[in-house]
Amino acid sequence: MNRVAVRGTGQPLLLAIDAGGTSTRAMVLTPDGTGLGVGVAGSGNPVSAGPDRAGAAIREAVRTALERSGRPAAEVELAQVAMAGSGGRSSWVSDQLAAIGIASPVEVSGDLIATFCSGTHLLDGVGAVAGTGAAAIRVEQGAVARVVDGRGWLLGDVGSGFWLAHAAIRAVVADLDGRAPATGLTPRLLAETGYTGPPPREPVGAAGALDHLVAVAYAMAPVAISKFAPLVFEVDDPTAADIAERAAEGLTRTILTAADGRLSQPLVLGGGVLHRQPAMAARVRAHLRQAGWTGPVQPVPDGLAGAAVLVLRGAGVAVDQRMAARVRASLREHQTA
Amino acid sequence: MNRVAVRGTGQPLLLAIDAGGTSTRAMVLTPDGTGLGVGVAGSGNPVSAGPDRAGAAIREAVRTALERSGRPAAEVELAQVAMAGSGGRSSWVSDQLAAIGIASPVEVSGDLIATFCSGTHLLDGVGAVAGTGAAAIRVEQGAVARVVDGRGWLLGDVGSGFWLAHAAIRAVVADLDGRAPATGLTPRLLAETGYTGPPPREPVGAAGALDHLVAVAYAMAPVAISKFAPLVFEVDDPTAADIAERAAEGLTRTILTAADGRLSQPLVLGGGVLHRQPAMAARVRAHLRQAGWTGPVQPVPDGLAGAAVLVLRGAGVAVDQRMAARVRASLREHQTA
Repeated sequence: MNRVAVRGTGQPLLLAIDAGGTSTRAMVLTPDGTGLGVGVAGSGNPVSAGPDRAGAAIREAVRTALERSGRPAAEVELAQVAMAGSGGRSSWVSDQLAAIGIASPVEVSGDLIATFCSGTHLLDGVGAVAGTGAAAIRVEQGAVARVVDGRGWLLGDVGSGFWLAHAAIRAVVADLDGRAPATGLTPRLLAETGYTGPPPREPVGAAGALDHLVAVAYAMAPVAISKFAPLVFEVDDPTAADIAERAAEGLTRTILTAADGRLSQPLVLGGGVLHRQPAMAARVRAHLRQAGWTGPVQPVPDGLAGAAVLVLRGAGVAVDQRMAARVRASLREHQTA
Repeated sequence: MNRVAVRGTGQPLLLAIDAGGTSTRAMVLTPDGTGLGVGVAGSGNPVSAGPDRAGAAIREAVRTALERSGRPAAEVELAQVAMAGSGGRSSWVSDQLAAIGIASPVEVSGDLIATFCSGTHLLDGVGAVAGTGAAAIRVEQGAVARVVDGRGWLLGDVGSGFWLAHAAIRAVVADLDGRAPATGLTPRLLAETGYTGPPPREPVGAAGALDHLVAVAYAMAPVAISKFAPLVFEVDDPTAADIAERAAEGLTRTILTAADGRLSQPLVLGGGVLHRQPAMAARVRAHLRQAGWTGPVQPVPDGLAGAAVLVLRGAGVAVDQRMAARVRASLREHQTA
């Protein structure tokens, strides 16, 4: 019998899952907030990955977490799954868990509230996510009181990965057209998309490069374009800086709208763009300070700690600052193990 | 034997077709530029309407034009078809005409050069189109020397119907979200899309209206959204004015890029947005004046007169100002008949 198994034996088992568009993370924990095992797999979002791949990813992440905990699936007493577009997914999620021997009740929540709970044990505040999409929520008494933006690539998602990449591609096309200043985004995007034609700074090259970008971009699902978002932060010129600045301004406006004038609330920032692009998070923080924000701002990598907080609450545990800290510390320990 | 038939008898017959995304127009004419008959049908663009519907529209427009001319299909000696995305469509167009008894050679040109030729008999100048898409060309010695923009809704088309409608819808979503000022576009777009829920100025109504717009917009093909572009010109408020202004600025930049510093050239403006929205055309003209444009600016309704000019040139006729004027006068006469 190993150390982990000894530690958890006899206590009820809780399961937290963050099923994201890029990866799925699962954590097995006890009601005192101690993590016993963590598992990671691919995209667990049935919309972006398709239900088969998403289901397989969820099952794989959970099985790994359980194996590492040394405890059997049958001992899970409550599960909590955080995912974007969570509405009406309860039975699908339950089916995935039942397939690996977990018959417990399953609660499904949105990714936004899980992100918020990853950053604070408090029941009131604002959470913002900028990943492929972008949105902010106001949380009151632990529940989502308002959602701002997050209406997808066509209608909103200001400051999201799609928004950034779309602005970058349009700036490159305008550059190649001679309608806008030359930008370092152009050679980077052409390299990234596998352009091998003549130099795009000569007329014949520009025409070929434009045809290449048309062929590449229209063949992709619109949201897939968001993979080019990091270019905005890798290029140091006025065009890239202007795109990053407008993204940060838009996201700040989304956050301030959700906050509704209460600028001393806690704010949690999550999602791939804010997590992996410190320059973007810094711009948003600067805009918020300028707007008079005085509340604490907490960056988080994902919604797993928040899903753990939510499953603890679901099990009747009052999660205070100390317990939330224990959840996060436990997660760090398992993720670096 | 009617008047029209007598007029044309014995002269070689030429056929000009403007196959647009909204409608198809055909004109039968003689080598002196006299129109003998005009026919109109639905979309003749195989990309937007599908090849079957587009082919049927082209055949219908041509048959009507021939009937009105009182001359048989077999007498057509040369045909000219203007259409967007004209590359590689020659044999498809020939097949459509062969199916109604026209075995003549068929020349296919782009819609941009046809629009240009609708507005001037000169061989050098700039043509700009803003319809569903937007682009400008520089014409040298009667041929397209450069194309600027026109890379479709995702990558460009600044100032197009899609661009305007997309900006309007995003402004409405931001309004309903509370992220942007209230705009008169909101009630107009909701009415236009059949929203019948609670008043959108109350929170519950705003949520319902947003869900409605998400359902409507993502169910449409992106370019189909351009049908909402006229709202921008029907609403009189700062949000709508700002969208129109940014569209006009973008289109002006496209035109100036195509002109390449030669501001005394003739400029022809066409496409549905510029033709049906005088406010948009006026804004573009104002920006051009500000930029120092001194050349004549000619608005045109479509590319049919230009297709006629092109088929005359194809038949070896040197089209001067007088003949171009005769083509246009003849067209007006037939279109109002």
